[in-house]
This record gives sequence, structure tokens and C-alpha cells, in this order.
Amino acid sequence: MASDSAVDTPAVDHRVDATDGAVHGAWNNGLEPVLTVASGDVLEIECRDATNGQLGPDATVGDLAALDVDQVHALTGPVAVEGAEPGDVLQVEVLGLEHRGWGYTLVLPGESGMGLLPEEFPEPAIHVWDLADGVARFVDGIEVPLAPFPGIVGVAPAADGEHDTNPPRAVGGNLDVKHLGAGSTLSLPIEVEGALFSIGDCHAAQGDGEVCVSGIEAPMSVTCRLTVRSDLEIDRPRFETDGPFTPTGRDERMVGTTGLGDDVREAARDAVRGMIDHLRAERGLSREQAYLLCSTVVDLKINQLVNEPTATVSAYLPESVFPD
Amino acid sequence: MASDSAVDTPAVDHRVDATDGAVHGAWNNGLEPVLTVASGDVLEIECRDATNGQLGPDATVGDLAALDVDQVHALTGPVAVEGAEPGDVLQVEVLGLEHRGWGYTLVLPGESGMGLLPEEFPEPAIHVWDLADGVARFVDGIEVPLAPFPGIVGVAPAADGEHDTNPPRAVGGNLDVKHLGAGSTLSLPIEVEGALFSIGDCHAAQGDGEVCVSGIEAPMSVTCRLTVRSDLEIDRPRFETDGPFTPTGRDERMVGTTGLGDDVREAARDAVRGMIDHLRAERGLSREQAYLLCSTVVDLKINQLVNEPTATVSAYLPESVFPD
Repeated sequence: MASDSAVDTPAVDHRVDATDGAVHGAWNNGLEPVLTVASGDVLEIECRDATNGQLGPDATVGDLAALDVDQVHALTGPVAVEGAEPGDVLQVEVLGLEHRGWGYTLVLPGESGMGLLPEEFPEPAIHVWDLADGVARFVDGIEVPLAPFPGIVGVAPAADGEHDTNPPRAVGGNLDVKHLGAGSTLSLPIEVEGALFSIGDCHAAQGDGEVCVSGIEAPMSVTCRLTVRSDLEIDRPRFETDGPFTPTGRDERMVGTTGLGDDVREAARDAVRGMIDHLRAERGLSREQAYLLCSTVVDLKINQLVNEPTATVSAYLPESVFPD
Repeated sequence: MASDSAVDTPAVDHRVDATDGAVHGAWNNGLEPVLTVASGDVLEIECRDATNGQLGPDATVGDLAALDVDQVHALTGPVAVEGAEPGDVLQVEVLGLEHRGWGYTLVLPGESGMGLLPEEFPEPAIHVWDLADGVARFVDGIEVPLAPFPGIVGVAPAADGEHDTNPPRAVGGNLDVKHLGAGSTLSLPIEVEGALFSIGDCHAAQGDGEVCVSGIEAPMSVTCRLTVRSDLEIDRPRFETDGPFTPTGRDERMVGTTGLGDDVREAARDAVRGMIDHLRAERGLSREQAYLLCSTVVDLKINQLVNEPTATVSAYLPESVFPD
């Protein structure tokens, strides 16, 4: 549907539909490639939402209890790239993303606790967003600018067998770097022949931190160019991006709540708690609404890590998301 | 000298010079105020550099061995504000900062290890910057845009006695939030009668993370308005700011190196190591130069904290700091 994010896109060489045979739920270098492409080819890849289609635009909180979390994340691929060898680098140029007009953000308390504040948010919650005109619509006229990107971009690890999609890895995966939108280039170290590229978990927007465990999760198509580079040497993901680094791509008024802690994660929790307090007191949101909004449009920033023993981490809320 | 940062400044009600009697090196609610002002007054406060004037524009690495670190940080104050009571909030509007044309960034390995990578940088290092025309000059034509702010802004803690200036506290202090430049407002919880406000440790620029333990450290004058608010209730610092959120205040090309780790600080170390590798390989900097540049213009960003067990933290380098 709406193409909210695209750079000048060259002709597409291959289309990959998210059929059952082209979707997988774990990293595994033993998977048969769904397609083999030449280095430099442009692909348009259909991606299901992270839950593998279990949630639709009419989803409610009642649907969350029945959710099969083993189906998270649904990835499209793997795509083999001719000539890719271990030690090479796969460059993924993100050329465009196209959403379907809707997305959702959820709190999904798991047995081990999901999200940054699992004990404070033990109940499931969901907001289904309307995506149109460059924004995602929340409650009370609040609009989050769209800045779509694939949350998971990766190649198969060298180690045999199935690997959980949840943690990000040296070969990429669930990086959730929100700046990997159209116009960015991600470089990944290749560990197996053919690289075995997969992609999914697209987000229409996300705050740095993704604190409630989800961005604006949305099915999308991603157009990208895959290029094998034998002249580069990296052992971790690297990228280039033009942002946006603020919700609107320009400096704007932000409210900051500061967290302090010897442990950086604790400092981040402290900052998010302060922002939830702010959103309740000053903007009249419920605790759950505030947590969902933090995960989609509030950026956690590391201010300093060196003033021993206490780190400063702050949560930044752009004031422009509220109606005048 | 050059005023690189100012908003429309109203008339100054009080000037506080950084005389020996007006400079202190620890938080202590027993210090006599150097001045008592009315709520709403505008002050122009002279701040020494963090080392209390031990380093000047001709400083070399040879001077670092003799440095008395007990004199860090030199703060100007305390200033009492009439009517301020415990439970009130002090609003600090930063109206302008004026540097003296120079600053320095140093690596200062301490007994307990200072900075994010103390074991990898065991030797002292320093770069003295020329500050002019809105930029700080590094090596090889590299220019870091000035974005001056006070690294330490705080009020006295309720607990009696001397308190180290190094860790930031609920009452503020060594926050090192680089977005607290001209035009920003910081709110601090007041714990003692009169608030007892102090300020110092000014930076001409700093990267989020301040990884080598210093920004561009510089003596400056800070103009600010102090207002007591009895209608607010906070227990930690909060602020409002217009940025800049990128070095130039607009979206621009950034190179990102990704760090992964169960511990967020370890993930940050990983990202900084990747950026140092990048600056050496692609830009020809020495390891020490790369570390110093990271601390002054590279931003650490928390991408996600929820993909258990592994956090993503990336280091972002703006390409615009390099000559064409």
C-alpha cells in the first residue's frame, strides 16, 4: 500500500513472496535457499509481521493469550548469493519499504519476563495503529512519524543447527537498529557459502531501546540490493545511514528524563520510569499507553558511561507527536 | 571571547567570577554561599576548566603526569536562591555559553582505570583544540562542530559532609548530558534550604558516552536563569532541549559500528572498539587519536535492550567532520 519510505529504486530483479515455503522461524545454515541471486541483484521481499500472521488489523488484547510465541520471528528467506564465501562481506542496501496500512505494538509478558520493565507491566496490552499520510495514529490525536526499517537483517551463522532469532549476533539478525531505513547500507560478515540471507520483523517506527519489546510491528515489503564484497573485512555488523535521527529529521523540542545507575540497564529503566511518570502526569496517558508510546517514539540515549561508578542514560520524547 | 552559543539573553543581574573563594571541589551543603539571588534572576557565571586551571592552551602530555586529580572538578558556587526549600524544584535555563578560544581532550589512566577502555589505553594522551568559527580543530583537517554545555549542573545534596563530584546524583551534578546547551532548561530536585547551586566542567562538544573520560574541556562563562518552582514535583533531573541531536543539527550521513553484549556497557565497549578500528583503517588515525575523537563527536546509541539476552549498542560517526 502506501510507500512511506523509498529512495530512487532501480528495477527489481527478483520478487520473493512470503509463502509458507519461504518463511522460517530460526537461523539454520542447513535450510535450502528459496532463491539464488547474483551479487548486485535487487530483490523485493515480502515480510510477514513478527508473529507470522497470528495478529491482524483487528487484533485485541484477548488474542495475546493464545499467541504461539514459538512462531516469533517469521523471516523470509534464506536467499543464497552466488559467489559468497565465508570471510566475505554481504552489503545490504535498503532501497525502500512498503507497509500495508496497519501495525501493532504489544506488551507480552513471558515466563522469563519480556521488555525492560516486566515486573511493572505483568499484563498483556496492545495498540493497533493506523498507518497513513506518513504517520501512525495513537490515542488523543498523538501521531508518530513513520520511519520504517527491518528489525531483523542477517545471514546464516557458521554453527550448525537451529538458533533462536531473538538475540542479535555477529552475523546480524535481530539488531533492531532503527536507522536501517531506506537509503542505509548494512554490512554483515559472511560465515557460510552463499551467505544465506534472511529478513523480517519490520517496524513502521521504533524508539531507541524498544523498551516494551516491540516497535510498530507491521507486515511490509522490503526492496534491497545484495552485494558480495571480498575486499572488506569485518567481524561485526557495520552500517551507513542518513537517519532520521529525530522523528522529523530535524532538531525539535524534546523532554528528557534522566536515569542514573551503576548498571547501564538499571539507569535506562530509571529513565523510562521517569518518562512514564511524565506522560501520565503531563499528558494524561495510562501507564500502559505510556509504556507503548515509549517503545515507539522515545529514544534512550547514553549520556555518559565514564563518571564512575554512575552512568547517565536519558529518555527523550519529541513534543511534536502531540496535537497543538 | 567567541560566543558560539547563545539565545536571546536578557540583562544579567549578577556576575560570579571564578575567584579562589568562589570555586570548590566537592559537593557540601555546609559551604557558605558566594551569593544569594532572587528566584528568576539571571547570572553570568565564570567557570574554570575541570582541572582547576592546571592545564592551559600550551598543555602537553608531559603535564598530565603531574596533574593533581583531587582538584577535579572545579565548580563555581554555591549560589543560594531566596525562598528555595527542600521539596521545591530549581529550574536552570541555560541562556548562553562563551568559551575562551581553546579546550582539550585527554586520556587520563587512573589507578582504578578511567574511561570506557582503560586497559586498552594505559598511557596518557591529550589534544589541545583551537576553538573558532563554530568548530574545534583536530588533526588532518578534521573539524568538530561546537555545541557547548556545562557538564556539571547541580544543587547541594541533603546528606552532610563532602561528596565526590565524579558520579552524577539525583540532585544533578556530573550529568554530562550534552543536550543541555543554550536554550535548554534543566529541572533539579532541591534538598536543602537555598538550593545551593553550582556549575562547571564545561564542554565545547562531547559525544554521547564521553568514552575516553573527557569531552572538549574548556573554561567558559555560562549565562543562566535560576527559578524556584514550588508547583513541580520531581525526584530526578528532567530537562527540555532543542538539541542539536546531530553535530550539525540536521540529518547527515553517519557510519555506525555495532556492539553486542549481555551487559550494556560491554556492548558499548564493543561498538567503540569497532569505531576505533574504522577510524584507523579508513581515516588513518592513530589508536589514541581515534579514542579522543570518539569521545568528542561519536554518539553511542542504545538500539535495543529487550532482545534477551543480548543488547545492541552502536557508535555513530558523522562523516561531515572530515574535510571533503
